[in-house]
Amino acid sequence: MSEPRLVEVRRNVLKQNDIIARTLREEFRAAGVFVVTLVSSPGSGKTTFLEKTLTQLQPRYRVAALVGDLATENDAVRLARSKAPVRQITTGTLCHLEATMVQNALQEWDLHKFDFLFIENVGNLVCPSSYDLGENLRLVLMSVTEGEDKPLKYPTIFNSADVAVITKNELADAAEFDWETARKSIESVRPGMRIFRLSAKTGEGMEAYLEFLSQQLSENRVVTQA
Amino acid sequence: MSEPRLVEVRRNVLKQNDIIARTLREEFRAAGVFVVTLVSSPGSGKTTFLEKTLTQLQPRYRVAALVGDLATENDAVRLARSKAPVRQITTGTLCHLEATMVQNALQEWDLHKFDFLFIENVGNLVCPSSYDLGENLRLVLMSVTEGEDKPLKYPTIFNSADVAVITKNELADAAEFDWETARKSIESVRPGMRIFRLSAKTGEGMEAYLEFLSQQLSENRVVTQA
Repeated sequence: MSEPRLVEVRRNVLKQNDIIARTLREEFRAAGVFVVTLVSSPGSGKTTFLEKTLTQLQPRYRVAALVGDLATENDAVRLARSKAPVRQITTGTLCHLEATMVQNALQEWDLHKFDFLFIENVGNLVCPSSYDLGENLRLVLMSVTEGEDKPLKYPTIFNSADVAVITKNELADAAEFDWETARKSIESVRPGMRIFRLSAKTGEGMEAYLEFLSQQLSENRVVTQA
Repeated sequence: MSEPRLVEVRRNVLKQNDIIARTLREEFRAAGVFVVTLVSSPGSGKTTFLEKTLTQLQPRYRVAALVGDLATENDAVRLARSKAPVRQITTGTLCHLEATMVQNALQEWDLHKFDFLFIENVGNLVCPSSYDLGENLRLVLMSVTEGEDKPLKYPTIFNSADVAVITKNELADAAEFDWETARKSIESVRPGMRIFRLSAKTGEGMEAYLEFLSQQLSENRVVTQA
C-alpha cells in the first residue's frame, strides 16, 4: 500500500506551504494590511457575505479581495460590483488555496494601498484547514440551512478558524434552525469561539461584525507598530 | 518542488482504488444488490433525504446504508430511525470514501439480503469525484439554498455523477431559488443529465425519484441475469 508514502509527501507539501505563508505574513505586516480568510462549505453564502463586507467597509477603509474557486470567474464578477479590486484564483481540481497561489495572485498589487485584504477559499470544509495563508484572521461560515451539527462533523476546520459566522439568518425560521444546538456544537469543538449570527441579505447583524473587524485592524496596528 | 511526485503518488492511490472498486462491483452484481452513492456539499440535506429514501423503499424492498463522515456517528444514529441496517464509516481527516473502506465496512453483511445499498459519501464537492466505489448509480445533491451556479463551480463532481437531485425545495421561495438558471448550469456541465427536484421534508417530488430507483433496479437485474 502506498499510504505511508502519500502521507510523507503531503507533509512535505504542507511544510513548503508553511514557509511561503510565513513570508506572506511578513509582507502583510510590513504593508500594514489586515488579512481575513473565509472558509465554508459550498453554498453557505460566502460570496454574498464578502460582497456586502467589501461594500460596507469601503467608505472607511481601502479593501481588496482574492477569491478561490475550482472553475469559473463568477465570484470575481459578482464581487466586482462592490467596486473593490478583486482577483480570481482558479485551482483546477485542487480543493483548497495554497500560500503560493496567494503569493502569485498578489504579485502586481501594492499591498500598502489596502487596509483589509479578504481571501475567499474554495468552498470546502476539509481541505483548506491545513493550509496557512499567512492570514491574521480566519472566519468559518455556516448557513442556518446546513444543519446544526456541522462543527461536530468537521471539527478540524472549526478548530483552525478564529471566528464562526452563522449566515443566511433570514432563512432561520423557514429552515427551523436551532440556535442553541448550533451554539453548543461550536462550543464543544472550540470553547469560547466568537460567533456572529447575521444575514448579508437583510443586513441584520452585519454592523457588529464590521465593528469587530475595525477593532481587529486597530489592535493589530498597535501591536505591529509597537 | 514536490508537486510532480505528489501527483504520481495520488495516481497510484487512485489506481489501487479502481482495482478494489472493480472487485466490489463484481460482488454487488453477484449478490443482485443495486448500489447508489450520494455526494454533495455538507448541509445539502443528504442524511434527511437518505432517511426518507430508506423508510419509503422498505415496504417493497430490502435496503441498507453506509454513511461516511470525518467524525461523529450522528448520521448513523439518525438513519437508524428508518429501521434499516446502517453502518458508519469515519474517515478521520480524509475528505472522501475509498473503495477499501466500503469493502471493510461490508465484511460482516451478506449482500444477498439486500435489494438496495446506499452509500452516503463525506460531504464534499471535490474529493469524492475521483473515487469509484463500485456503485451502479451516483447521485449528486444540491439544495435550493446553495446557489444556482454550483455545477459550474464544481464541474467534476457533476460530471462524475449520473443523476442530479435538487433538495430542500420547501425553501425554494424563501431562498429565491432560480430553477431555470440552476437547470442551465447543470445542462451546460453535463448535457441531458436527469434531474429530480424534491423536498424530503414535505415529500414533494419523492415519488418520481423512488419510481426511478425501482426502474433502475429492474433494468439492472434484467441485464445482469441476461
